[in-house]
Amino acid sequence: MCRCCVRATTSPAPTSWCCRAEPPVGPGSTPVASATVPSADVVITGTGLFTPPYSISNAELVASLTVSVNEWNAAHASEIAVGAREARQVPDAEFIEKASGIKSRFVMNKDGVLDPHRLRPHLPLRGEDELGLQAEMALPAIYEALAQAGRRPDEVDCVIVGCSNLQRAYPAVAIEIQAALGAGGWAYDMNVACSSATFSIQSGVDALCNGSANLVVVVNPEITSGHNNFAMRDHHFIFGDACTAIVLERTADAIASEQWEVLRGRLQTKFSNAIRNDFGFLNPSEDGERDSMELVFRQRGQQVFKEVCPMVVGHIREQLDALTLEPAGVRRFWLHQANLKMNQLIAKGVLGRVPNEDEAPVILDRYANTSSAGSVIAFHLHRGDLVSGDLGVICSFGAGYSIGSQVVRKR
Amino acid sequence: MCRCCVRATTSPAPTSWCCRAEPPVGPGSTPVASATVPSADVVITGTGLFTPPYSISNAELVASLTVSVNEWNAAHASEIAVGAREARQVPDAEFIEKASGIKSRFVMNKDGVLDPHRLRPHLPLRGEDELGLQAEMALPAIYEALAQAGRRPDEVDCVIVGCSNLQRAYPAVAIEIQAALGAGGWAYDMNVACSSATFSIQSGVDALCNGSANLVVVVNPEITSGHNNFAMRDHHFIFGDACTAIVLERTADAIASEQWEVLRGRLQTKFSNAIRNDFGFLNPSEDGERDSMELVFRQRGQQVFKEVCPMVVGHIREQLDALTLEPAGVRRFWLHQANLKMNQLIAKGVLGRVPNEDEAPVILDRYANTSSAGSVIAFHLHRGDLVSGDLGVICSFGAGYSIGSQVVRKR
Repeated sequence: MCRCCVRATTSPAPTSWCCRAEPPVGPGSTPVASATVPSADVVITGTGLFTPPYSISNAELVASLTVSVNEWNAAHASEIAVGAREARQVPDAEFIEKASGIKSRFVMNKDGVLDPHRLRPHLPLRGEDELGLQAEMALPAIYEALAQAGRRPDEVDCVIVGCSNLQRAYPAVAIEIQAALGAGGWAYDMNVACSSATFSIQSGVDALCNGSANLVVVVNPEITSGHNNFAMRDHHFIFGDACTAIVLERTADAIASEQWEVLRGRLQTKFSNAIRNDFGFLNPSEDGERDSMELVFRQRGQQVFKEVCPMVVGHIREQLDALTLEPAGVRRFWLHQANLKMNQLIAKGVLGRVPNEDEAPVILDRYANTSSAGSVIAFHLHRGDLVSGDLGVICSFGAGYSIGSQVVRKR
Repeated sequence: MCRCCVRATTSPAPTSWCCRAEPPVGPGSTPVASATVPSADVVITGTGLFTPPYSISNAELVASLTVSVNEWNAAHASEIAVGAREARQVPDAEFIEKASGIKSRFVMNKDGVLDPHRLRPHLPLRGEDELGLQAEMALPAIYEALAQAGRRPDEVDCVIVGCSNLQRAYPAVAIEIQAALGAGGWAYDMNVACSSATFSIQSGVDALCNGSANLVVVVNPEITSGHNNFAMRDHHFIFGDACTAIVLERTADAIASEQWEVLRGRLQTKFSNAIRNDFGFLNPSEDGERDSMELVFRQRGQQVFKEVCPMVVGHIREQLDALTLEPAGVRRFWLHQANLKMNQLIAKGVLGRVPNEDEAPVILDRYANTSSAGSVIAFHLHRGDLVSGDLGVICSFGAGYSIGSQVVRKR
């Protein structure tokens, strides 16, 4: 008996799996239509989005970094002249949009980021009795998601914070949010970078299916401006801040007017240092000086592009194969929002052609890369026109490498 | 149909729960014996322990801090004389053992911790192509656990790192470990402080029950010496380093000669700032200077003692009530190892009398508080004498506050 969908199955060790993972017909047969995919035990009953108060255009960002780069080059002119250092290159707003599709990004603080002598946010120091910044971002997103779900905050019994950087080790940010909600049950923080949302959704689904929780909130407070490198031309434009929230419930319990079945999740990780950040609690104990560039986000962008795109194409194809669905049967792809070309290449690899904005909506033009929040923002803002039975794929990818996807269907 | 044990049950929203949570008989009836508790779908098939190479006695620690305190008091003598500052008190080895039960602790580096002018480990800076320190601690613990389980590292398809501090944000430490094992599937990092192990076990159980994973490794690489405050008399003795690992599988898949059914897990969190650490990636963006004492472990010990002990007693009692088990039917309590008096008070609250070492084994005398690893070390070192059918409770508690417990039974 398969536990998750109560159907007879065999369970050979150690390759046993939910029976939903096994194609009900042979791999060469005709894919089934959406309606024949078994119904799911868990549904998404609400999503929420907190958008920070400030937007920064490419032109503003470029103006600031240009001042900084020119000053740095002037300060290191003699070393640059004798070839001991390489001159830093000034940024280019046109290049940014062409290379990434990003036009602007939201941030929690603007003047600190744009101050060429600071290039990081100004965040007022908060005492321990004040709500932390990540909890502050989380609450409006969660309230919006709970309102969609028709649920009160005190009905929540599980809060999972999944994001690419946590503002402290303990107490967990998730427990602070749980308390602010007046929620019961339990809460914890998790991190698998850009895939923190899709992985957390799976943890929530697993907890609901196994009865460990009844009303799960997954929340992704991404303050990327706190770990981005605004001093480097290749990185300064990449990220933006945002927070998303997702409410998950067992299908049998859900009361929301709009519900999305979570048909199948897939999580995948493969180690890579091509995206890395070495800031951490052991730094003060390390002997020797770290390059300050190691203590914020860094990446080898071309390598990431080349390695991750084919992995994601294979990942999504295997997801659809497992459900015996054709890519053409997927109404919408809510992809991780890092780079427009990356998304076009991935969607092309899955669909066999470049998708239009209706098939793979873009939010990175306004939000930039918001790490784990990106694909959830796309799902949050671009699902209203879909109808009952429509299928979609929420898919994240990024540092780790980590890839996570959830195939969903509107009830 | 209850998914986790395939028995008929009702599922009222939003308070539905696994049917195992419902006492099979009324609350006033006679508790059932161990054999009548339904069998579990998931078993622990192995555990492992990495003990760091260096041990520090209380006397050694006190000698070092005494030098530091005397120098600090001398340096601030004029301020102390006029009452502008309070003199720091010298530590006392006898007091430490009397107050906590701790005699020594293991650390990854000894000379840095004992250097009165440093009071933190010396950790050689490692490049990104070298194995990280947390992954290095994790591997021997995992290999030991897998050997018990009769499993190869490449059979693992889920690695969850749960610990009270992660050495970097990305790539996840768990993915680094997954790669070092040659494991497949997926991996992520999570943190809910001292309860990271018991919570991660539940995530593993949920993933196994729902078919999201087949062979789960939970691993707890605790480098507490990297975030302890060795400069303060009230804190310097509390912690030690260690790493534990647990292998989880579905009962139907398990091949280990020794297996422990995971009968029921319970997770509970309640926000508190009584244990806190504000070190984090937002510090460089904060306006104003933080007290350096805020950037490492700090606690209000008396408050923690008073608030946490009754919570844990209630938590364990409710666990046993849900299984209609009497405390006397529990063969062994593997409790979080923070403070001997705390454990005695908790066990007394559950049993009605002070337990002996056979009922509630102590490892904190040698290991001190190893955060999430503590209760797992106790389980790892003190279960060999139990026989088939014997019941035990693994229970953690600490910062958050977080409390987690798993009721287990030897098959």
